[in-house]
Amino acid sequence: MPRIGVLQAASRVGAQEENLSLIRRSAVRAAEAGADLLITPELFATGYAPARAAESDGAGLRKQLAAIADEEGIGVVASTVEDEAGTRFIAASLFDETGAELLRYRKAHLLGEEERRAFTPGAGVPRAALFRGLRVALGIRYDIEFPEYARSAVRAGADLLCIPTAVRATGDVGGPQPLHTYNAERISTLLVPARSLENGVYIAYANYARPDFTGTSVIASPYGTLLAAAARGEELLLTDIHPDEVQRARRLNTYAQDIRPELYR
Amino acid sequence: MPRIGVLQAASRVGAQEENLSLIRRSAVRAAEAGADLLITPELFATGYAPARAAESDGAGLRKQLAAIADEEGIGVVASTVEDEAGTRFIAASLFDETGAELLRYRKAHLLGEEERRAFTPGAGVPRAALFRGLRVALGIRYDIEFPEYARSAVRAGADLLCIPTAVRATGDVGGPQPLHTYNAERISTLLVPARSLENGVYIAYANYARPDFTGTSVIASPYGTLLAAAARGEELLLTDIHPDEVQRARRLNTYAQDIRPELYR
Repeated sequence: MPRIGVLQAASRVGAQEENLSLIRRSAVRAAEAGADLLITPELFATGYAPARAAESDGAGLRKQLAAIADEEGIGVVASTVEDEAGTRFIAASLFDETGAELLRYRKAHLLGEEERRAFTPGAGVPRAALFRGLRVALGIRYDIEFPEYARSAVRAGADLLCIPTAVRATGDVGGPQPLHTYNAERISTLLVPARSLENGVYIAYANYARPDFTGTSVIASPYGTLLAAAARGEELLLTDIHPDEVQRARRLNTYAQDIRPELYR
Repeated sequence: MPRIGVLQAASRVGAQEENLSLIRRSAVRAAEAGADLLITPELFATGYAPARAAESDGAGLRKQLAAIADEEGIGVVASTVEDEAGTRFIAASLFDETGAELLRYRKAHLLGEEERRAFTPGAGVPRAALFRGLRVALGIRYDIEFPEYARSAVRAGADLLCIPTAVRATGDVGGPQPLHTYNAERISTLLVPARSLENGVYIAYANYARPDFTGTSVIASPYGTLLAAAARGEELLLTDIHPDEVQRARRLNTYAQDIRPELYR
């Protein structure tokens, strides 16, 4: 039964070595707590600043992240830039505990002008890879807000969706929820668990901590309950994942059998 | 600015006249409270018992429901059986305040063996009709649990989805939410507001009251907040609906612009 860790922390733009050290320390801490996999926020190693991140050496960072996974003996999900002949994508990778890159995914739904200027959206659908008896798929930030993304990842076989994210505090109102306002917590408390319930899938949603980001990282069960939920500060969430629960949830909530795809084209 | 009422009550199987009287009294009460539209639960006039309801005279009931709307001067959403040459559907209708039937919708996602034995699932996508400045679409019970249904209704132009429902207490555990168990409240508190947020649409979800059903009817805003929420007993929820908020929500949460339908076929 695999255990996962979700890192909620702040990284610093332009301070790659410092950020990688933080990932390494968190990997050590998660491994010591028995975790098999550590999920980190979107573009954490470069810091979330789309225009600057776009200039980073993604391939070099992935080598360093693979080395951390290998040396600390723990799987790592981390987000870097992928540059394909000058076309840049926000990517996320799943490294196993030997540093092998089992998956690389390109963010399909870019959010806001800053991301759209610096990056090209991915054009593929998620794939799933087997890791410690779990079928894992990746998504990034805005992707999970679209039910179509989660459906396609689960159709690809996923038991667990790992979602590095970067939800900025700008415009966020937190606390009680008035109308007319943006409230980032609704992504964590409403959309993420809804995706879990409607697909019978675990979701690990890893955000940056305050002050510039909203925290509220969560791990949701395939029944749509929150197994772990962070406040706004630095935190390492740890949860055991039971692959059997995915099958059990899908026997209870038979959405995959009852859906009528022919109606909604 | 239209005001809507959601009726949460218990009706009695086989007691159509009594059930119609209850709808009429609720229509009077809602109209007196300034409501323009009353939304009632699934198959409320016959009582929710699929096999018995299938034998009911749906056309006759719709005439009586139209008369209630006309005589009490209030729009009514009510669910009856539609029989097309022996093929039976669970339907819902929108009657305006003159008794004109503006919409009839056939439930697309049947739930459980009992419904599947007695009924045929609808093969159409929702349409929207203009009522008091609001574009209204209908869905029934299980439909709203599928994000694909709500997407198609909103793509058809809806500002407000009216969802008669019948969520039985059988197997429901209420209260705190353990794993491995069915918890009907998650439909009301998680899936319905998620549909509202991800589509920028109002949703009125009208369920039966206890003891046989779970109550927890809700009205959700296009921001994914609950504007009104019932407990498990009899209740009439009343909320003002602001068509402008739909546009405002869609400017704030630009899912309709940012979705990438070409990826998810």
